[in-house]
Amino acid sequence: MKKLNVGMIGGGFMGKAHALAYAGMPMFFWPAPVIPHRHTVVDVTDELAKDAAARLGFENYSSDWRKVVEDPEIDIIDIVTPNDSHAEIAIAAAKAGKHIISEKPLARDAAEAKTMLDAVREAGVKHMVAFNYRRTPAVALAKKYIEEGKLGKILNFRGTYLQDWSADPNSPLSWRFQKDRAGSGALGDIGTHVIDFARYLVGEISDVNAVAKTWIGERPIQIGGVDKLGTVKANVDVPKAAVDVDDEFMTLVKFENGAVGSIEATRNAWGRNNFLTFEIHGEKGSLVFNYERRDELQVCFSDDPGDSRGFRTVYTGPAHPYGEGLWPIPALGIGYGETKIIETYDFMKSIAEDTKVSPDFEDGYQIAVISDAILESAEKSEWVNLSKQGEMANLSK
Amino acid sequence: MKKLNVGMIGGGFMGKAHALAYAGMPMFFWPAPVIPHRHTVVDVTDELAKDAAARLGFENYSSDWRKVVEDPEIDIIDIVTPNDSHAEIAIAAAKAGKHIISEKPLARDAAEAKTMLDAVREAGVKHMVAFNYRRTPAVALAKKYIEEGKLGKILNFRGTYLQDWSADPNSPLSWRFQKDRAGSGALGDIGTHVIDFARYLVGEISDVNAVAKTWIGERPIQIGGVDKLGTVKANVDVPKAAVDVDDEFMTLVKFENGAVGSIEATRNAWGRNNFLTFEIHGEKGSLVFNYERRDELQVCFSDDPGDSRGFRTVYTGPAHPYGEGLWPIPALGIGYGETKIIETYDFMKSIAEDTKVSPDFEDGYQIAVISDAILESAEKSEWVNLSKQGEMANLSK
Amino acid sequence: MKKLNVGMIGGGFMGKAHALAYAGMPMFFWPAPVIPHRHTVVDVTDELAKDAAARLGFENYSSDWRKVVEDPEIDIIDIVTPNDSHAEIAIAAAKAGKHIISEKPLARDAAEAKTMLDAVREAGVKHMVAFNYRRTPAVALAKKYIEEGKLGKILNFRGTYLQDWSADPNSPLSWRFQKDRAGSGALGDIGTHVIDFARYLVGEISDVNAVAKTWIGERPIQIGGVDKLGTVKANVDVPKAAVDVDDEFMTLVKFENGAVGSIEATRNAWGRNNFLTFEIHGEKGSLVFNYERRDELQVCFSDDPGDSRGFRTVYTGPAHPYGEGLWPIPALGIGYGETKIIETYDFMKSIAEDTKVSPDFEDGYQIAVISDAILESAEKSEWVNLSKQGEMANLSK
Amino acid sequence: MKKLNVGMIGGGFMGKAHALAYAGMPMFFWPAPVIPHRHTVVDVTDELAKDAAARLGFENYSSDWRKVVEDPEIDIIDIVTPNDSHAEIAIAAAKAGKHIISEKPLARDAAEAKTMLDAVREAGVKHMVAFNYRRTPAVALAKKYIEEGKLGKILNFRGTYLQDWSADPNSPLSWRFQKDRAGSGALGDIGTHVIDFARYLVGEISDVNAVAKTWIGERPIQIGGVDKLGTVKANVDVPKAAVDVDDEFMTLVKFENGAVGSIEATRNAWGRNNFLTFEIHGEKGSLVFNYERRDELQVCFSDDPGDSRGFRTVYTGPAHPYGEGLWPIPALGIGYGETKIIETYDFMKSIAEDTKVSPDFEDGYQIAVISDAILESAEKSEWVNLSKQGEMANLSK
Repeated sequence: MKKLNVGMIGGGFMGKAHALAYAGMPMFFWPAPVIPHRHTVVDVTDELAKDAAARLGFENYSSDWRKVVEDPEIDIIDIVTPNDSHAEIAIAAAKAGKHIISEKPLARDAAEAKTMLDAVREAGVKHMVAFNYRRTPAVALAKKYIEEGKLGKILNFRGTYLQDWSADPNSPLSWRFQKDRAGSGALGDIGTHVIDFARYLVGEISDVNAVAKTWIGERPIQIGGVDKLGTVKANVDVPKAAVDVDDEFMTLVKFENGAVGSIEATRNAWGRNNFLTFEIHGEKGSLVFNYERRDELQVCFSDDPGDSRGFRTVYTGPAHPYGEGLWPIPALGIGYGETKIIETYDFMKSIAEDTKVSPDFEDGYQIAVISDAILESAEKSEWVNLSKQGEMANLSK
Repeated sequence: MKKLNVGMIGGGFMGKAHALAYAGMPMFFWPAPVIPHRHTVVDVTDELAKDAAARLGFENYSSDWRKVVEDPEIDIIDIVTPNDSHAEIAIAAAKAGKHIISEKPLARDAAEAKTMLDAVREAGVKHMVAFNYRRTPAVALAKKYIEEGKLGKILNFRGTYLQDWSADPNSPLSWRFQKDRAGSGALGDIGTHVIDFARYLVGEISDVNAVAKTWIGERPIQIGGVDKLGTVKANVDVPKAAVDVDDEFMTLVKFENGAVGSIEATRNAWGRNNFLTFEIHGEKGSLVFNYERRDELQVCFSDDPGDSRGFRTVYTGPAHPYGEGLWPIPALGIGYGETKIIETYDFMKSIAEDTKVSPDFEDGYQIAVISDAILESAEKSEWVNLSKQGEMANLSK
Repeated sequence: MKKLNVGMIGGGFMGKAHALAYAGMPMFFWPAPVIPHRHTVVDVTDELAKDAAARLGFENYSSDWRKVVEDPEIDIIDIVTPNDSHAEIAIAAAKAGKHIISEKPLARDAAEAKTMLDAVREAGVKHMVAFNYRRTPAVALAKKYIEEGKLGKILNFRGTYLQDWSADPNSPLSWRFQKDRAGSGALGDIGTHVIDFARYLVGEISDVNAVAKTWIGERPIQIGGVDKLGTVKANVDVPKAAVDVDDEFMTLVKFENGAVGSIEATRNAWGRNNFLTFEIHGEKGSLVFNYERRDELQVCFSDDPGDSRGFRTVYTGPAHPYGEGLWPIPALGIGYGETKIIETYDFMKSIAEDTKVSPDFEDGYQIAVISDAILESAEKSEWVNLSKQGEMANLSK
Repeated sequence: MKKLNVGMIGGGFMGKAHALAYAGMPMFFWPAPVIPHRHTVVDVTDELAKDAAARLGFENYSSDWRKVVEDPEIDIIDIVTPNDSHAEIAIAAAKAGKHIISEKPLARDAAEAKTMLDAVREAGVKHMVAFNYRRTPAVALAKKYIEEGKLGKILNFRGTYLQDWSADPNSPLSWRFQKDRAGSGALGDIGTHVIDFARYLVGEISDVNAVAKTWIGERPIQIGGVDKLGTVKANVDVPKAAVDVDDEFMTLVKFENGAVGSIEATRNAWGRNNFLTFEIHGEKGSLVFNYERRDELQVCFSDDPGDSRGFRTVYTGPAHPYGEGLWPIPALGIGYGETKIIETYDFMKSIAEDTKVSPDFEDGYQIAVISDAILESAEKSEWVNLSKQGEMANLSK
């Protein structure tokens, strides 16, 4: 079996998830399309990188991502850094002929994403954006039902991503609250996952009309570079600085195929943890999903008899997408790790078989275009039509 | 105890609910502020009216609502007819000096609602619109938490009302699908309940931006006047006619106090029955309600300790609003009847104590103004600001 | 339509529920089999009875139940008093030739229940025991599925009834904690509802093996006769007295048809309000019900395709048992009142049509036999076989 | 960091789970107490073992487990084979001085388990039984609440483990349905997890009283040795053979501390997938857990104010047990893999720190004693007291 060497740039929370996926993927999907080898991990300092290598099972480490990107032994570059470094790394990796998987959002805005897309197209390498949640088997099952026509024509979509880790005003000001580093706030960080669901399940979005809010205007400055996602409260004495991204947005959407919908995200929703949901109504049925209970998909079929019609709670397992590779009994339990293992599997397969994988940088770019439009719409208080937003129309063909 | 005579115009499904409330109210709330006596019921023909009187426990019956409205023995007129007759009956009743409770929506549009509001103001009678769902004890509990400041400043509101009884294209074309009779579709029929929640719990709405859709363009004409709410499927051979109201709408809303939100309603959501929900986030907590599980309110308080914070599922009972009068154990069960019994209680109390009750015709008018703005916004594809919509600003003071 | 005069003995919480049912039944089920007329209500004193009549809409009142039982105008005696008076009243009513509906449990023990059964048999009157929860449409739907064979052979049953209103040691010692008045504790009060479910849905119970516990040995004595079901906490200074009934029991059961099961009840389960549940597995499917969410029945059919099999959440409405008479849309809401309205309907129908209604005093007696066996089993720590418990074998034919 | 070499006996579904845990553990818990190195995997043939090594990331492979057990390079033996080989391997491994982790149930019966316990005691090695579900953070949180006294004295426990993978009579007869290989059926396979919960959360069990059933008396013989847990249906023509283990059992239990409870398990419950649940009531609160929604623990505290008391749905994350090592946001998702990673962490820590880990072979033995008593009780139809069951009383000190 072919082995491909991975150079992973970043050793934080996301690095952990990706490292687990590299280790676990062949255990689940066998024979593996390729074996991803944890060749080199990069972190900010040599010391941190050395520690990351030991922790995450990489053979080598480095504090110089450029050298890794250019290392001829490396086949794949995996970008798990904050948003402001995605483009630079990806473009360099593309030029070096490496296949690339980048964490989401692809870039801070559409223009930046476009430079990345241009680079991978030019280089002819494989590329993927890590919108892992659509790899949840229950989400893939939703897609399957829709493609099989079991819901008929799709009428609408409503998606939410609600968290509460930044609802506390003393949650520190990490890079996720800084526009120059993150691009946007809840929108780019979590809202883009919902946009990915909407496009994956329903189709291309043509128009948006949004409101956006920054509820907590300033936060205590984070000490040290590590982003703890709100789990550490800052000391009261710490100086504060301004938040210049959205805490929350809501947008109406129109789809090219006539469906309508709403998308919203916030990190200030007390009691919601990773409440990534969708509800879809079609002419012949409905779907409901909540990632907090991610082993389940709820589906209602209109042609069930009237006296026994209702949402079926389907627990995904061997009978469902990716079921052959996963655990043998439904509800043994899909965790975050499994979504990343499936993602890695699909990426490796696309490399091995030289096929297009989705979501790739084109999707990442389109999602950036939509995200920009959402912010523009919120600022101008008007609908923004996406066909006017540059290359997008071509992409969606 | 004072007894007041009710003349009820209409003997259908809503008449049943109101009749049960008149009978049951003193059983639950005792001593009763007044005893509502089922004096006369009106239906389309004498035969129907006679049957309704026997069935619903009214002493007298009539097929002439005007005569009942003018009957000096009658103290209260209860309007449970289709939307297109609310105004005519209410204005006549006001002129005759009767207290009035009208089913919702108050009228087919704001202009019509305004004529009713003017009439009851002029007459100085008590008036109420039957947005009964806010009488659900769990909703009243949400209001109580908010008023006590337990959620802090309210940031947002999202409300839905999803049903599926008209999702079948063979559900007959009743008056609910005809603009001249109903005014609007899902918006007036069910969406107005969500608007009522939004105003009740968060505050006045200042701006809306909506989409509206008619998914099923024509339906088989209903045989006979009885509205079965989709439970009877039309024969396939029946001729069809056009639907000229919305099947579904979604709107973003801005509140005067700075909160934002979304409201949507559809009667085409397979699997949803009476899915009237809200989710509210405040600076200090969150609320979630779903009428399909109406004995429950979910609430999360930010000041719970981190290791045991989460949504509390509170079942309403004696410790909660209206609990003294209702069943002695939570989850014995609030049904539709109980919401109407509470509504009747509050209306009778307002008459007995000469106090303002809410929602009254002012609320009904404001909801009509908002509804009109939603349709206007959907048609023009732009935000509509409500302060420009006439009298409303004055009302909300 | 024939009108029958009801004499109701008792004007407390249960009296309220029954009064609402008498008023509401014809509104829901029309044409009504008979019209129950609220003729006379009895309470402990004339003053209380007079108040009850005004409150509950009875024409007359009395503090002498014997006179009412013998009143030739009375057709039906409705017993809504504490358990220790059921037998005396019922036997007198039977002798006077009245039809009888008695609250549950039928009596304090099987021997007492037997005297009641003998009396109604001798008198040839109609008789019913008010195990109203099986009238919940979702429970009736479960019965329908089973009778249609949709679940195949039933393998097992597990039922619970968990409440928390007596979990607080300061909840006062009402008659419900006194063996001489109640017969037993959680067993008779709520456990009998689960036994009723088990017999209704699965079949006759042949053996039991139980544990029973009194967790709170003494409680403050209740001031005044009114049973508030724990909603009023006693003053700390109040003298205490011993509880001599069970707070909780659990029993294994064997059914005559080979199925097995477990039944349990407690009033000391913090957080459970009216958690009356069952889960049933058959060879071809499963059922799950929770009265706290009583509009819903969950059903799983084994012959659904593997990729879309799961529990269906069916909301009962017009397509389900009793649906013609109830609300026109599922989840408008079944409350406690509706269960009592249906119960009254079935009792009136049995009188009008001279048919057997279930559960009747035979069922009430059998449930008492089973209850006695549960206590005996718990005391002796051994299985108790019911075929040795007297008349039961004959009854179940 | 110290590296310990693992020899894993078995390369099936459980081998996959353990291999993932060895790879992932240091990524989650860092600095790792020791680094488990995947040294050698054993399968039935060289070919299968070679494949397993490639798939699961082991350095070496073998088809001779005895050689691996005696390999001086090996520090830890991991037993992930069918039940009938646990004892032989474990005793050999103990004699060779290896630390041992064995899949559950520890053995086919208590006598066999005792030989294993004796062996590890004699050898002085570390030992663990892989009842991984108690490692679910939500279960560990339940334990924490109980130990902190937040629930007061525990009154009762009810636990279930319901699955449906063998409900189909055509699910093949794997070793799990053969007494000589498995020891028992649903009891040993899944019921023991519930017994483990009961002992972990409440305390030692003193008495049991059970029923046990074999619902499907014969099944088609499985072709090939691989146990697919019912996901493959046998061809109709395949010859059948008798099932000689329980499909389902239910038992009442008494705890030494006075609490009571019920435990049940079945693999024939249509619609239940991995429905491993408990509900616990204490004097001061209640707990509810369902592994199908394993990120959540429901807890109700009696001292919450009456108007906002109810079950809190707590999603486990950084603020809860093992939270430091797991994902940074609650509901990112605990899967089966994470439970095994935590289990491995605790075992490695016990080796590194030379401390006792739980559940160990003592627990495994006691659970076997209880399991034997359950079967004895079911056969004899009487309570079985466990203090008479041999060594147990000593162990529980």
